[in-house]
Amino acid sequence: MAKSEPERILLAHGGGGQLTNQLIHRHILPPLANDALSELGDSARLDLVSSSICFTTDSYVVKPLFFNGGDIGKLAVCGTVNDLAVAGAEPVALTLALIVEEGLELQTLERILESIGRTAREAGVSIVTGDTKTVERGSADGIFINTAGIGVRLPGVEPGIGKIAVGDKILINGTIGDHGMTIISQREGIRFESQLQSDCAALADLTGTLYQRFGGVKFMRDATRGGLAAVLNEIVEAGRFGVEIRETDVPIKPTVQAAADMLGFDVLNIANEGKFVAVVAPESAEECLSLCRDHRLGQDAAIIGEVVAAPEVPLVELHTRIGGRRVVQMPYGRELPRIC
Amino acid sequence: MAKSEPERILLAHGGGGQLTNQLIHRHILPPLANDALSELGDSARLDLVSSSICFTTDSYVVKPLFFNGGDIGKLAVCGTVNDLAVAGAEPVALTLALIVEEGLELQTLERILESIGRTAREAGVSIVTGDTKTVERGSADGIFINTAGIGVRLPGVEPGIGKIAVGDKILINGTIGDHGMTIISQREGIRFESQLQSDCAALADLTGTLYQRFGGVKFMRDATRGGLAAVLNEIVEAGRFGVEIRETDVPIKPTVQAAADMLGFDVLNIANEGKFVAVVAPESAEECLSLCRDHRLGQDAAIIGEVVAAPEVPLVELHTRIGGRRVVQMPYGRELPRIC
Repeated sequence: MAKSEPERILLAHGGGGQLTNQLIHRHILPPLANDALSELGDSARLDLVSSSICFTTDSYVVKPLFFNGGDIGKLAVCGTVNDLAVAGAEPVALTLALIVEEGLELQTLERILESIGRTAREAGVSIVTGDTKTVERGSADGIFINTAGIGVRLPGVEPGIGKIAVGDKILINGTIGDHGMTIISQREGIRFESQLQSDCAALADLTGTLYQRFGGVKFMRDATRGGLAAVLNEIVEAGRFGVEIRETDVPIKPTVQAAADMLGFDVLNIANEGKFVAVVAPESAEECLSLCRDHRLGQDAAIIGEVVAAPEVPLVELHTRIGGRRVVQMPYGRELPRIC
Repeated sequence: MAKSEPERILLAHGGGGQLTNQLIHRHILPPLANDALSELGDSARLDLVSSSICFTTDSYVVKPLFFNGGDIGKLAVCGTVNDLAVAGAEPVALTLALIVEEGLELQTLERILESIGRTAREAGVSIVTGDTKTVERGSADGIFINTAGIGVRLPGVEPGIGKIAVGDKILINGTIGDHGMTIISQREGIRFESQLQSDCAALADLTGTLYQRFGGVKFMRDATRGGLAAVLNEIVEAGRFGVEIRETDVPIKPTVQAAADMLGFDVLNIANEGKFVAVVAPESAEECLSLCRDHRLGQDAAIIGEVVAAPEVPLVELHTRIGGRRVVQMPYGRELPRIC
């Protein structure tokens, strides 16, 4: 850093003048460098391989900014990549918009930007354009990040909740609750905090292979806010079917379960950042499962239940470990603020 | 509103559960309705007319949320549309990501969303996907909005700062400083506040016509943060040329000038939200000017200066009203926090 440069973010860093330029050229561009971004135009010009695209956005307000297994920057890349991935697209380009609170240490911003650059490279996407705003101390909480993403739709892949039919299998690519329980445990400072780790990961490689290899993969969604419970409830709300899952088949790490029990959470409602739920035709289910298990991000994959003929009101039902049944409801939403 | 619904935003509105769904279905979708958005997928699927696109993003943190001539919602649509427009694209689709502070009145959110819907319809773009996050009271300031946008590049239109040559004319589509002085006057509560009005407007119709009718339009940029001074300095920094402008030709409303004088601002540094600077070959300049003046958003358009052979260090120079010259510098950035 040049001697004259402040060590913390000033309001003037967002003013569109000299200091904004300095921030962009010294701190933002180097870790993210690519041709489209370096043009610094009002918008990035892209030539896509197809005009059939997916387009998505998410803001990230996670607290704390750094956690076991990731940070807000990694999350901001993975979350948006995954929204494209589960929709059947190959992620291509992301935007990056920062809202930074006056007083944030420049070093903290640098760590986050490095993480963004690294995660984007690993996921095969480019950050092609961006924006930085600053707000006065007390008007934001450190940093909020928005990423929007464009993906090119995979040829022949047309997932849709409307394709789901009775008998389809529900597959998940691994353990649930890891991200949310890591964040909340870190916030609460519980003792086995260090044994928990966010599952934050970019899923496009695995989802792309599944979609392209198996016509029987009908629908995928990433199980973020609201957890597995929210995704399964969206499926039953959209269709005319019920969903039954078996508690014994839902992969959960013992430490995650212990943390959830201790803090009074239902793991089914807890956010994940590297998990998708796939609805798969029964004849493809075992092959899909085996492909997942061969992939770094699917080693604990499991078939956790089925789509069933609907009772009068379609429901998500859990067959419990002790032989009972309970309805899994759409969570109300108050479980975990600022989890992503 | 259903009786049971809270009148203010709760943290749980961002939790991804029932309350999030309620917010989306009752408040967000109705004013924005379109087919792509209603699918509520993880990402919107779009079939563009071309794979040659522009992609942009901006966050909006303006304070106050409502001001003469606009509000944060109108700004969030116009600002992103304009970034696509000046780059030579026809704006097609926007994302909409909200970060809402716990306690914001639902009615305030509704007013903003209606403004977004109306502005998007007028500008001919669709809000195709979105995201809503909530943060605790005190962790944001009412609402922050991010929009990302996709535009299809106009065939044959390839603007570039590298095309600029000595002799090119600098054109602006109207008065400068209106947006910034409106915001700051409203914040400071100065007495002629009510006579000021933001120029916030979507420029794509006018810029599209200019680009397509006149091959001589080489480059455009919207003069937002940092104002006219920042755009002109970017031009000289990128090229090997200087820029000279004439103070008497720069259109400024008397009330804007008076407010700036009173508060100690240089209008050249003040943000606009409905103004572009165009660099035009001399032979096209008069026709461009005349076309602008026939358009609702260009009635006060003016040719304010020229691109000139560079001195050793390329500079932006202002020929002042009284016959002097002064260098127009890149503003430092501290002038106006949270202006957009």
